[in-house]
Amino acid sequence: MAKAFLDRHGVDYIGIDVGTDKEQTKKMIEISGQYGVPVITVDDEVIVGFDTQRLNELFGEEKGGEVYDILIVGAGPAGLTAGVYCARKLLKTVIISETIGGQAIESWAIENYMGYRMVSGDDLMRKFEEQVREQKDIRLELDKVLTLDRTGNEFLANTATGAAFRARTVILAQGKHPRTLGIEGEDRYWGRGLSVCSTCDGPLFKDKVVAIVGGGNSALQTAIEMSGIAKEVHLIVRSRIKADESCIKRYEEKKNITTYLNSIVSKLKGNSMLTGITLKDRDSGKETDITIDGIFLEIGWIPNTDFLEGFVEMNAEKEVIIDINCHTSVPGIYAAGDVTTIKTKQIITAAGEGAKAALSAYEYLMQ
Amino acid sequence: MAKAFLDRHGVDYIGIDVGTDKEQTKKMIEISGQYGVPVITVDDEVIVGFDTQRLNELFGEEKGGEVYDILIVGAGPAGLTAGVYCARKLLKTVIISETIGGQAIESWAIENYMGYRMVSGDDLMRKFEEQVREQKDIRLELDKVLTLDRTGNEFLANTATGAAFRARTVILAQGKHPRTLGIEGEDRYWGRGLSVCSTCDGPLFKDKVVAIVGGGNSALQTAIEMSGIAKEVHLIVRSRIKADESCIKRYEEKKNITTYLNSIVSKLKGNSMLTGITLKDRDSGKETDITIDGIFLEIGWIPNTDFLEGFVEMNAEKEVIIDINCHTSVPGIYAAGDVTTIKTKQIITAAGEGAKAALSAYEYLMQ
Repeated sequence: MAKAFLDRHGVDYIGIDVGTDKEQTKKMIEISGQYGVPVITVDDEVIVGFDTQRLNELFGEEKGGEVYDILIVGAGPAGLTAGVYCARKLLKTVIISETIGGQAIESWAIENYMGYRMVSGDDLMRKFEEQVREQKDIRLELDKVLTLDRTGNEFLANTATGAAFRARTVILAQGKHPRTLGIEGEDRYWGRGLSVCSTCDGPLFKDKVVAIVGGGNSALQTAIEMSGIAKEVHLIVRSRIKADESCIKRYEEKKNITTYLNSIVSKLKGNSMLTGITLKDRDSGKETDITIDGIFLEIGWIPNTDFLEGFVEMNAEKEVIIDINCHTSVPGIYAAGDVTTIKTKQIITAAGEGAKAALSAYEYLMQ
Repeated sequence: MAKAFLDRHGVDYIGIDVGTDKEQTKKMIEISGQYGVPVITVDDEVIVGFDTQRLNELFGEEKGGEVYDILIVGAGPAGLTAGVYCARKLLKTVIISETIGGQAIESWAIENYMGYRMVSGDDLMRKFEEQVREQKDIRLELDKVLTLDRTGNEFLANTATGAAFRARTVILAQGKHPRTLGIEGEDRYWGRGLSVCSTCDGPLFKDKVVAIVGGGNSALQTAIEMSGIAKEVHLIVRSRIKADESCIKRYEEKKNITTYLNSIVSKLKGNSMLTGITLKDRDSGKETDITIDGIFLEIGWIPNTDFLEGFVEMNAEKEVIIDINCHTSVPGIYAAGDVTTIKTKQIITAAGEGAKAALSAYEYLMQ
């Protein structure tokens, strides 16, 4: 994002990757007194972190003169598909997203994206991105929308790099992020045994041993589902089970689920792949090691909708409420994918919703 | 369907393709006294056409002993995707459809199915079909559902080949069929200059000359859209224009649209590709030839929902009413794709809806 900011403001700079250059790493720590990136030096000044306020003071703020037909927030399956559909309708389009591919890039083997027997999330999202980049009249910005407001007949988005974008319509497609355990090794095993989607990755664990973390409906449903696929299922519940009766009944019938109440995962173990976990009893503090092939986190997802509070209608879970054609409560604003109230969180569905949102926005612009 | 019937009833037969075997064509005409297929001979009896009543008398009717978890009507993008999702949830699934691929196979160059820069509808649907056929516990029947009823906690479907299928849930994904001109050559030029989807095929006609048939909102919208892509647009309206004011206003601003009121297309001309049409003035009968590269029919689509009358709630256009998670008015029955009230008629959207319908049905079965 720092690079994107400097590029946008036409600032010449030299980029140094301290991950590969030890000499420069030392120097960075020396001049900044800390280990975090980015560190930006401007003449004698040392700016630690991506400090938009200071960078704006130094290099000025873009005023966003151009008015786009459509601004798409997010570049996961929904946002990228919306982008292709908008560009094909010859709409002047900008997509703003921190990353490309969204949660989809976390799936290491997708078997249920129609048209591909098996594809990695990373590869599939690269194909989506290429399809977007082939279009004319589309701009893809690596940036983060911080605020969204209406000004007259237009919408105005301010971003983390200090840019402002004006647009006649908006598609919200910025997805959700998973709640995580917050323990060491979580990043390392992500996609290497650790998953947040049994519908995506469940079938890979046929006749294996898996653990599921959580005590709600989705955790129990995942446990029930995996009990028919995996050899053995360990269900790890922080306090006690809080799920629907029908769900509990089916769960209780399963013979190959071992349940650990009042327990947390304290360690993840393995080499290149996850091979085991340590459980900790929250009362006694006693630790137990279990050998597993995979672990599914079912402890919730958080919609990326902080900046929409009070602007569009959301449900109690802070998902954007839409109708079947992706209209939100605000005319001119549409929403698609995981950020919405739609239950199915799948790439093919998010992509389908992205197309819908784009065509609904197009219809609005035509009138 | 005749072959499917005989296969299902375990009847040994010899299939003869009279399209390639001239000797046998002669013989068929001789014994049946007509030119239509199929003609089935049983001992000395000659059965003309697919006469289910007579075939059932001869070979008996399947009673449908097995109860499926889910019956999917239709094997277009929505039905096939639903099939993959159901099978991956280990549901016992049957898909019943007259054809495989639905309307999608009519698109000759798809550029907006995410994951493929360019693919023919036929190729893409073959990939969808392969993904279905790879699954266990799924049965794909080439047949047509004639009636759908509820019996207790189950649904019962009777089909054109005389089969009966029982299932605990149903996904309706049987799509729509386009209204056509009903003139000679229409089949031949389908996908060779004649299209029913400007969103799919419009960009292929950059700087070309196209005709659009129809006088409603969708015809005008297509004319407006194509006026920005094609060099020249001819709009052929049967009587007069019947569209929204906003739409008419935008249409009137376009300089490269020539409109023919009170006119019909009387002839399609060309060789391997469509190259021209003849228009006929409905009052004077005067005919005019126009050279074109493509023609878009925007004269409406007809949902394949005759057999659902009075069973599930539909709108005035006879589309199945759904909510954002593909529930219909009947618990246990879900709907996806073009057969529903969703406006976007696109492969990626139908596929996304198919996944939703499958997961909603799964949730229902879990309870």
